[in-house]
Amino acid sequence: MDNRAAVLHGPHDLRVEDRPLPVPGPNEVLVEVRAVGVCGSDIHYYEHGRIGDFVVSEPLVLGHEAMGVVVGSGERAGRHLPGTRVALEPGVPCGRCAECRGGRYNLCADVAFFATPPVDGAFARYVTIDEDFAHPLPDQVSDEAGALLEPLSVGLWATRKADVRPGDRVLVTGAGPVGLLAAQAARIAGAAEVVITDINPDRLRAAEELGAGTALDTGERPLDPGLGADVLLECSGAPAAVAAGIAALRPAGTAVLVGMGPHSDARLPVQLIQNREITLTGTFRYANTYPQAVALAAAGRVELDALANRRFPLDRTEQALLASRTDASVVKAVVMPGE
Amino acid sequence: MDNRAAVLHGPHDLRVEDRPLPVPGPNEVLVEVRAVGVCGSDIHYYEHGRIGDFVVSEPLVLGHEAMGVVVGSGERAGRHLPGTRVALEPGVPCGRCAECRGGRYNLCADVAFFATPPVDGAFARYVTIDEDFAHPLPDQVSDEAGALLEPLSVGLWATRKADVRPGDRVLVTGAGPVGLLAAQAARIAGAAEVVITDINPDRLRAAEELGAGTALDTGERPLDPGLGADVLLECSGAPAAVAAGIAALRPAGTAVLVGMGPHSDARLPVQLIQNREITLTGTFRYANTYPQAVALAAAGRVELDALANRRFPLDRTEQALLASRTDASVVKAVVMPGE
Amino acid sequence: MDNRAAVLHGPHDLRVEDRPLPVPGPNEVLVEVRAVGVCGSDIHYYEHGRIGDFVVSEPLVLGHEAMGVVVGSGERAGRHLPGTRVALEPGVPCGRCAECRGGRYNLCADVAFFATPPVDGAFARYVTIDEDFAHPLPDQVSDEAGALLEPLSVGLWATRKADVRPGDRVLVTGAGPVGLLAAQAARIAGAAEVVITDINPDRLRAAEELGAGTALDTGERPLDPGLGADVLLECSGAPAAVAAGIAALRPAGTAVLVGMGPHSDARLPVQLIQNREITLTGTFRYANTYPQAVALAAAGRVELDALANRRFPLDRTEQALLASRTDASVVKAVVMPGE
Amino acid sequence: MDNRAAVLHGPHDLRVEDRPLPVPGPNEVLVEVRAVGVCGSDIHYYEHGRIGDFVVSEPLVLGHEAMGVVVGSGERAGRHLPGTRVALEPGVPCGRCAECRGGRYNLCADVAFFATPPVDGAFARYVTIDEDFAHPLPDQVSDEAGALLEPLSVGLWATRKADVRPGDRVLVTGAGPVGLLAAQAARIAGAAEVVITDINPDRLRAAEELGAGTALDTGERPLDPGLGADVLLECSGAPAAVAAGIAALRPAGTAVLVGMGPHSDARLPVQLIQNREITLTGTFRYANTYPQAVALAAAGRVELDALANRRFPLDRTEQALLASRTDASVVKAVVMPGE
Repeated sequence: MDNRAAVLHGPHDLRVEDRPLPVPGPNEVLVEVRAVGVCGSDIHYYEHGRIGDFVVSEPLVLGHEAMGVVVGSGERAGRHLPGTRVALEPGVPCGRCAECRGGRYNLCADVAFFATPPVDGAFARYVTIDEDFAHPLPDQVSDEAGALLEPLSVGLWATRKADVRPGDRVLVTGAGPVGLLAAQAARIAGAAEVVITDINPDRLRAAEELGAGTALDTGERPLDPGLGADVLLECSGAPAAVAAGIAALRPAGTAVLVGMGPHSDARLPVQLIQNREITLTGTFRYANTYPQAVALAAAGRVELDALANRRFPLDRTEQALLASRTDASVVKAVVMPGE
Repeated sequence: MDNRAAVLHGPHDLRVEDRPLPVPGPNEVLVEVRAVGVCGSDIHYYEHGRIGDFVVSEPLVLGHEAMGVVVGSGERAGRHLPGTRVALEPGVPCGRCAECRGGRYNLCADVAFFATPPVDGAFARYVTIDEDFAHPLPDQVSDEAGALLEPLSVGLWATRKADVRPGDRVLVTGAGPVGLLAAQAARIAGAAEVVITDINPDRLRAAEELGAGTALDTGERPLDPGLGADVLLECSGAPAAVAAGIAALRPAGTAVLVGMGPHSDARLPVQLIQNREITLTGTFRYANTYPQAVALAAAGRVELDALANRRFPLDRTEQALLASRTDASVVKAVVMPGE
Repeated sequence: MDNRAAVLHGPHDLRVEDRPLPVPGPNEVLVEVRAVGVCGSDIHYYEHGRIGDFVVSEPLVLGHEAMGVVVGSGERAGRHLPGTRVALEPGVPCGRCAECRGGRYNLCADVAFFATPPVDGAFARYVTIDEDFAHPLPDQVSDEAGALLEPLSVGLWATRKADVRPGDRVLVTGAGPVGLLAAQAARIAGAAEVVITDINPDRLRAAEELGAGTALDTGERPLDPGLGADVLLECSGAPAAVAAGIAALRPAGTAVLVGMGPHSDARLPVQLIQNREITLTGTFRYANTYPQAVALAAAGRVELDALANRRFPLDRTEQALLASRTDASVVKAVVMPGE
Repeated sequence: MDNRAAVLHGPHDLRVEDRPLPVPGPNEVLVEVRAVGVCGSDIHYYEHGRIGDFVVSEPLVLGHEAMGVVVGSGERAGRHLPGTRVALEPGVPCGRCAECRGGRYNLCADVAFFATPPVDGAFARYVTIDEDFAHPLPDQVSDEAGALLEPLSVGLWATRKADVRPGDRVLVTGAGPVGLLAAQAARIAGAAEVVITDINPDRLRAAEELGAGTALDTGERPLDPGLGADVLLECSGAPAAVAAGIAALRPAGTAVLVGMGPHSDARLPVQLIQNREITLTGTFRYANTYPQAVALAAAGRVELDALANRRFPLDRTEQALLASRTDASVVKAVVMPGE
């Protein structure tokens, strides 16, 4: 049996090909992929063939927001019965280094992460993954929602880093999928008020329709530095949003950089950070979020289906990538390899 | 002008009397009371004339879950315009001691707390309070809800001590008003699952109707020690519930004792606490919760009106106390001094 | 080549025998043991053949405070050159479960821990261990000190749980080896004042000579409840010390139970815990302490050699166990298998 | 009786004058000043007549690192007997705002801080201060050391913000008095290794002589980005040191900006902050540090006298300011108004 997959051979060169069926390692399961969300990083690899130091030098399967059904197991893997629907946590760390032992496995230097060269991703009929990183899904969580537990994890991790608390006023800069999910995560953590900003009116309209919070067009009017937000979740990567967002925090507020900016450096208001004792940090992926994400989805406390508003079969993965970039009505495109 | 008040002269001796109108101190406001919730401690003072070392040796006005309208100000008080509706945070600390300076003003030894001898409470037409402890209420928060921000604060403080996080499974033992509000606070903080227990079927029915969580009658069937809760919010004070609740925690889980038990000591499973590294703590009132409570109520994120399901005029304060004890249909009785 | 080892066959039945040389697994190293401290748990197994649910039903090698020299490696183990002196972290967790992934690997249910049935310990010429749990030692750390990094880890973990901070007043109850090391750990973490209590004058004298802190004989005079300690590190397991220690804490203080008591339950002052918002927790072994312990020993910031004041060859392991119990001048007996 | 004081009338215009004796307010004590350290901010006011937005528009007494003896009390002040030696915590907050109530009184917008326009400082024979901010000193703490509890507080606050833990490797950039005290504070908090950098060889020599840590001249050789420090305490304010210091942190390390830089903005390595999940924050003065500072000095755990290596009478305050700037052998100049 072959494994059909969407393989990136170079910038703008995505080919749907048949590859050999992967064989699960001892602790791994074989998973028939059902749904894979398109992420901005997939699009960036597709357009540029690289992200910073990560270069696609060999053909690479993209896609890391995935769920599927267990169809086989390695010799020592026994946690999941065949037929179990699972969300796939896409980064499998070494489990041995100081970061892993310290509970910060997202910072493991030896992680194998889907769709990060040279590790293949999940725009494919089948993938293998360590059974501990396949998280069973209850029936009430749809396939698309199961895939979107990955960007939800990004949002949950950001709120955990920010220590969002009940009653907080949270500022989210950037109304793309990550911003929308960070806003949802903030609300789940108890935010009484969420303000979400962007310079794209379409995104802001979608944000309001999805109930993400109070939408502000900062292209029209700059953010009020007197906002006094408890927390900033920066999801745009835009240097101007970072600076304006920090300035809008209350004393002792917290800023978390989620979106990646265009440059390695950025000009930050250090005296403000000092005089107000602002805490600034960033997120790199996430750790220990999937169990919470599954529980929240199972309890109906998160809205994911409304975000996954455009589906594509595997053969049309390239269209999924393009639509995410060009079609303002697409919030999150999802590739359904089984359709 | 006189100040009508319900004054406790001794056990079961509550008299509605006219007293002199209080004069606000320099930093105080004069507040016309609109709504005051009946708390278990009020009932305990009414029945026994004391709570532990706190003895009602002089006539005492009960009531500490209060809101009202500002009608006057001391010479240095200028924060609130006359007519401002305010929730009253009932404990005013010294502001100077190590606890106050450390942000733990609930542990201030010199606090003046409504309805704690010898400080009069709020079952009265008028009270005075430090203006900083009168928290303005927006129109969308009802009078009764404004009063119930006090027990909500108890719940919020418990979840803060427990560090409830999105996705958590939270066990609440005791389905009285404090348990119901702790359950709500847990949900606001992101709990994916709330299990609430009691041995009183009426209370459990009310808990389910109010959407507090999955209700379990532990009089019928003991709590499953395999529950694996992340957090226990103990709101019954019953020694058996404390022990069973701790046993139902996951490793590294947290237990917060909110309800006061009958004895100064209790038998606790210390080896379990050690072997699972359980964290156990208790709450004494709350600190810095009112701004969050107001914000949550204003945002419609908390349901308080449904709890305040029986109202009494000031002249019938004694009936309010009795009904809270004897009428199973009363979740929270509220005295409305202006009616 | 054989592996000489001190094997417990039953209560008071310890035999020094030749066993087959252990073969390191793929990720393991073979270590020639140099020094092994005698712990109270070794003595307890020796005397009773069990500790709670852990029963010595098969012959068992005791000893878990160990260091040695790497003399061989499994096929995938490559971190340590032969000849490297290493301290052995005696518990190797699964690395995969929720506790391990969360950084709390000491709570891993599948840990393999030296000298805990059915896992053999280190009173032997050779042992094998996962290479990641063999921590290289610089020359300035003696063999005995390298072994004592294990009980030092217990102390460091206790201070971490207690969050001891510079300037704190720390109360240590119990002046045995664990209490002495907890006192040292507290001082390293910045304690301005350490008070150490016991009812054994010999232990108290040793504590003062070792500079552990102000020694109080609570057999003679009960602890002053007005002490106002920031932190209690309870290292005796005596129920009376637990209760008196908690009563001597300041409001919002922290109690950490390190010593194991005689019963699964204990009577605790719950109203005090509530009214003062005391935090109580316990420690079970430790996690992520060895790198810190090695760094502190290398920097000369901890005094371990003075504690290891009696050495025994492997053939006299039984005498080492007995001396730890009966000879008041022995603070910590150390078995030196190479001598 | 008059109050002799060193008054700044404008840049480089410092006049020693007689002023009226201050009268303590109700909660204040009158203090005869014994020792006042010279801080970089005093020198900056002296040279420029301003620091950022704080402008010396009226004559101002400088000096805020002070101790003295209580010689009088306001009507409601009763904590200190006449003759009590006290360290003066120079910032008295309002005690009422959200920051004060939250335990972050250093961020109080209404603080009155010595030597910050328009509040006079302590280069004077007498000052008044709220009795709660006068901290009694035991005999074993010298006058000079009592004054230096102020910059020690800066260091303690930085280590608290950084959460320095036993065994940590701490990088201190900048070897001026604040850097030296931050290094001491780090060691008190358990740092196993302190690396201190500067570009001034004299300062580095002094740092080594005082035992501050391993001294590195970053003017000669840039900092090794592979240092892997757990914590950066940035005490130079130099933009280059900030960037190099952050780059030398381990993943999940913490950077605390203590030194004020020349510009409101600075270029920071944001992608590093994100990819390594570095936490960055700053300090503004300190809160709740004096009790700890007094306890540490009383216990002999901090070396302050060796830093205070040049004394001046009050009439020579200007020479004290100038010497701090121009004489490399002066670590900390101290004005002794009683001499």
